[in-house]
Amino acid sequence: MGLNVAKLRSETPGVAHRVHLNNAGAGLMPQTVLDAMVGYLTREAEIGGYEAAGEAADALDGVYDSVARLLGAERDEIALAENATVAWQLAFYALDFQPGDRILTARAEYAANYVAFLQVAKRTGAVIEVVPDDGDGVFDPEALERMIDGRVKLIAITWVPTNGGLRNPAAAVGRIARRHGVTYLLDACQAVGQMPTRVEELGCDILTATGRKFLRGPRGTGFLYVRRELLRTLEPPMLDHFAAPWVAPDRYELREDARRFETWENNYAARLGLGRAIDYALDLGLEAIESRCRTLSTSLRAGLQAIPGVSLHDLGPDPASIVTFTVGGRDPDALKARLAQSGYNVSVSRPSSTLLDARARQLPVVLRASPHYYNTEDELSRFVEAVSAIA
Amino acid sequence: MGLNVAKLRSETPGVAHRVHLNNAGAGLMPQTVLDAMVGYLTREAEIGGYEAAGEAADALDGVYDSVARLLGAERDEIALAENATVAWQLAFYALDFQPGDRILTARAEYAANYVAFLQVAKRTGAVIEVVPDDGDGVFDPEALERMIDGRVKLIAITWVPTNGGLRNPAAAVGRIARRHGVTYLLDACQAVGQMPTRVEELGCDILTATGRKFLRGPRGTGFLYVRRELLRTLEPPMLDHFAAPWVAPDRYELREDARRFETWENNYAARLGLGRAIDYALDLGLEAIESRCRTLSTSLRAGLQAIPGVSLHDLGPDPASIVTFTVGGRDPDALKARLAQSGYNVSVSRPSSTLLDARARQLPVVLRASPHYYNTEDELSRFVEAVSAIA
Repeated sequence: MGLNVAKLRSETPGVAHRVHLNNAGAGLMPQTVLDAMVGYLTREAEIGGYEAAGEAADALDGVYDSVARLLGAERDEIALAENATVAWQLAFYALDFQPGDRILTARAEYAANYVAFLQVAKRTGAVIEVVPDDGDGVFDPEALERMIDGRVKLIAITWVPTNGGLRNPAAAVGRIARRHGVTYLLDACQAVGQMPTRVEELGCDILTATGRKFLRGPRGTGFLYVRRELLRTLEPPMLDHFAAPWVAPDRYELREDARRFETWENNYAARLGLGRAIDYALDLGLEAIESRCRTLSTSLRAGLQAIPGVSLHDLGPDPASIVTFTVGGRDPDALKARLAQSGYNVSVSRPSSTLLDARARQLPVVLRASPHYYNTEDELSRFVEAVSAIA
Repeated sequence: MGLNVAKLRSETPGVAHRVHLNNAGAGLMPQTVLDAMVGYLTREAEIGGYEAAGEAADALDGVYDSVARLLGAERDEIALAENATVAWQLAFYALDFQPGDRILTARAEYAANYVAFLQVAKRTGAVIEVVPDDGDGVFDPEALERMIDGRVKLIAITWVPTNGGLRNPAAAVGRIARRHGVTYLLDACQAVGQMPTRVEELGCDILTATGRKFLRGPRGTGFLYVRRELLRTLEPPMLDHFAAPWVAPDRYELREDARRFETWENNYAARLGLGRAIDYALDLGLEAIESRCRTLSTSLRAGLQAIPGVSLHDLGPDPASIVTFTVGGRDPDALKARLAQSGYNVSVSRPSSTLLDARARQLPVVLRASPHYYNTEDELSRFVEAVSAIA
């Protein structure tokens, strides 16, 4: 079943203003997401912050159901977070590492996560090891399996790295993690909203993601899934009385559900926007979204590839909707600014965001164009022409 | 210089809908705060999330200056946070406690903070000790000074506790902390926005607060001040590549400024609303605000005190603008709901939010009415009549 792109565009105020190819940065919010937030903020101003939350209690509670539906999880396995990084951190730092414990990760792991690995390694004596790729630059599950021994405490990878369309074999990794009983933490930040994301199929124990990218939700939103059996063994690295009610002068009691990773106070407007964005994506269907994203990104790659002087930097046989490229020796920041002047939103990805991969591949700063289902072939053609004119 | 209350009310949409006496929960946002957020969110939907942040870069950067002006600090000593609890946690958990290290706190310390003390005590062997009050229920600086020895690692108190107008002598504590070279962490959540809050006068090393209460900012905002000299010695408990850029495969480098306590992704609309709220308060002047809050809360206490069957539960000679009371044996939750039906917003404070104080004083669940400068004497009279009619 295809998507009614004309209708979806009519529900997206931003398409009248820009050719938005920065969905890997932040997607354009649909009008309904904006309305949910503006309506709620207005109500807070009218009747008070707590009073508005009371009035919207059912809708706010429903956000957990929306995330659970999106992931094929149970609502008690979901925590909402300020952003994907915080969601990831709260789970990762809850793990109890001992000297010599091994953390296995991927070459294209995101800088936010790798910095945390380094801090924990320094603090605990755990060691970080990078699983070799398969020659195409894709994470190699067989290499992973060969590396597993009793000291592997965690497998932590990014499904779709930030610096190119590479789609790592998240589900194959999950099967290996399950087989060996190793905890598996999947960063799904760039995947969620552009492809089906079902925790049972992925076999992950922990999954984190953001609302603002391909889900088209608000900035400042993220969420955390923790498999129920694992959840009960994890004490969050920091606690307040929401996560762990103060039940006696010398004792707190951790909540039973994943909200032990939350704090008392929240941005409820952003939460409602996130819920609305998830429901919107679920109504369209993630399979249909993935199919259209694949069509558009394949088309964009072909168009860019045909321009003399343009080099593509994406890896793997079936890349996701992130297209990275350079134009001769031209400065990507200047090109981004020039494209922006003509109404094309793209971003740049710097080596420091995926340092190991950038060094291994000698990647410079690259331009990143990330189409979403509401983009059109016509927009992509015009974009390719604009790049061609500059090149 | 007095405040032009009529003008301030005309700038506050909520006063047309409610008699809002829940400023200790969340203050009513002025129209300008709502406008800042709605305008920004709309722009995000029009041109994209990163693109809107780029366009508003100066205004977003200015929020740090606003917080710094509010606190009499430097902007590099300020971090913005998801909420006051997270700000407090990030600083507290960055402290390096050893077995036997003493944490000195107050009887009315907030549950969020006390739960964190308990977790760190369990994890590190640090011990928590409560400084006796002065007989009036006010934190006693002399008792504090007598308790100090070389094992005191931290003094951490709440300036204005959540469960009653008590105003702890924050500056006197600061002088003692400085004299003995002990780190001093001040939770100013209920103070900021209703009284001048100058870190040099307070003598604190760390101060945390929220935007949503007496500052009348958005929910989901908070900030952290860390004195520069201390800051440089603190490694945050969790890190990403914004806090600590990944500079070599095996090395990150902590930012120099307080933003080492932040993460990459943020809710920029909420930040702009926070900045606008702070500027609004600074324009009015915190001395004028404090004076009017004192007048109104004194008047409210007198009115409630005169009702047969009503008991006040506030402590100290000069309480802040939080008025707590009970009405005979009546259920506070039911009273709150009934008052809400008549348009009066109040909240309830439960023993579990300040467990030690509640046990010591045998406090039940109490009703909490917290007026702000935009309330009127007429509103308070009508509120007192409404309580009287119920009692």
